[in-house]
Amino acid sequence: MSANDRLAAENRAQLTAARVFSINLMASPGAGKTSLIERTVKSLAGQLRLGMINGDLATSLDADRAAAAGATAVQINTGGECHLDAVMLAEALPRLDLAQIDLLLVENVGNLVCPASFQLGTHKSVLIASVPEGDDKPYKYPGTYQGVEALVINKLDLLPYVSFNMDYFRRGVEMLNPGVLTVPLSCRTGEGLEAWVAWLKQQASETHGDPA
Amino acid sequence: MSANDRLAAENRAQLTAARVFSINLMASPGAGKTSLIERTVKSLAGQLRLGMINGDLATSLDADRAAAAGATAVQINTGGECHLDAVMLAEALPRLDLAQIDLLLVENVGNLVCPASFQLGTHKSVLIASVPEGDDKPYKYPGTYQGVEALVINKLDLLPYVSFNMDYFRRGVEMLNPGVLTVPLSCRTGEGLEAWVAWLKQQASETHGDPA
Repeated sequence: MSANDRLAAENRAQLTAARVFSINLMASPGAGKTSLIERTVKSLAGQLRLGMINGDLATSLDADRAAAAGATAVQINTGGECHLDAVMLAEALPRLDLAQIDLLLVENVGNLVCPASFQLGTHKSVLIASVPEGDDKPYKYPGTYQGVEALVINKLDLLPYVSFNMDYFRRGVEMLNPGVLTVPLSCRTGEGLEAWVAWLKQQASETHGDPA
Repeated sequence: MSANDRLAAENRAQLTAARVFSINLMASPGAGKTSLIERTVKSLAGQLRLGMINGDLATSLDADRAAAAGATAVQINTGGECHLDAVMLAEALPRLDLAQIDLLLVENVGNLVCPASFQLGTHKSVLIASVPEGDDKPYKYPGTYQGVEALVINKLDLLPYVSFNMDYFRRGVEMLNPGVLTVPLSCRTGEGLEAWVAWLKQQASETHGDPA
């Protein structure tokens, strides 16, 4: 077990003990991580208390957007590093009051390659693909598609304007990660968001050990 | 000087001696590297002889597309590595007949972070941004925007369907890389491609020492 994985296990134990359900959100630059977080915060207002850790090379633009949407947000500037790791998460957790959080969304650096190699200690990993990136991405970035528990397919509203064969895309996903939950949606129009929010609530409830 | 940079200088000397003008093409996954290569090969048919080196984590999808468009194409599978480096380029060059090539396009791994840290030895570096990625990318990925000699802004045809403030985007670019050439275009419709092709021809001519 690597030092990173050991620390990731400690992060997970800390989050579980605090009854915080946590997600590692990965995606290409511009696939819609921050937009999905904004939508999620608004959809769950009054139901779950959200916390956010936004990893970025520079700037606090994402944390600012998450905070404006109503979440407790902490920014990690990686100083050029291409991914988050368990050390960065361990350093960020004490900056949040975990007793006031039910669901923690950790926004990784926009990168389809490197983040997949570093466990953070979150309960689940979610990949956000987006329609304008093209339908060949599972075939070309297999490592990231293999390691996630759910796949959001964002920017569904752009389907009429780009070449994107959903069957070809889904075949690639199914080959790499059989049975993985896929949630097609549009953060722009709101279409499909209810399935994403329902999954989050169900997962949070299971992690917290609440009766189903 | 690092070992990588020394080898990059050797690659550049080899390419210059062979009268090959070379470009390192960087972009996020799905910004349109391969589509721009296809368009470029077709636009320059009968004018410049094109060679291609496609870096990818897995698959030869991109080299297949480039070859189908009419270029001499060589695939580098990085085996999961998140960027190309000068060693990989040095190993790929002998697989091409440089005497038969005027312009060499090197397609880096789809990644806005890591490739910027590794010189390959090409004459110029070009970044392809794309409209659906969003107008905040220069602010969030400054390293890659700083180090390039030209910036293609692809998927211009999607401007009516997404939130993308061109002025805000350009201000970020100008702050990081004052005066850098920007070429807005659409690989889908062909709009704007003539400016890109003209720049390539001019750069190739200057590198080859031909009279302007």
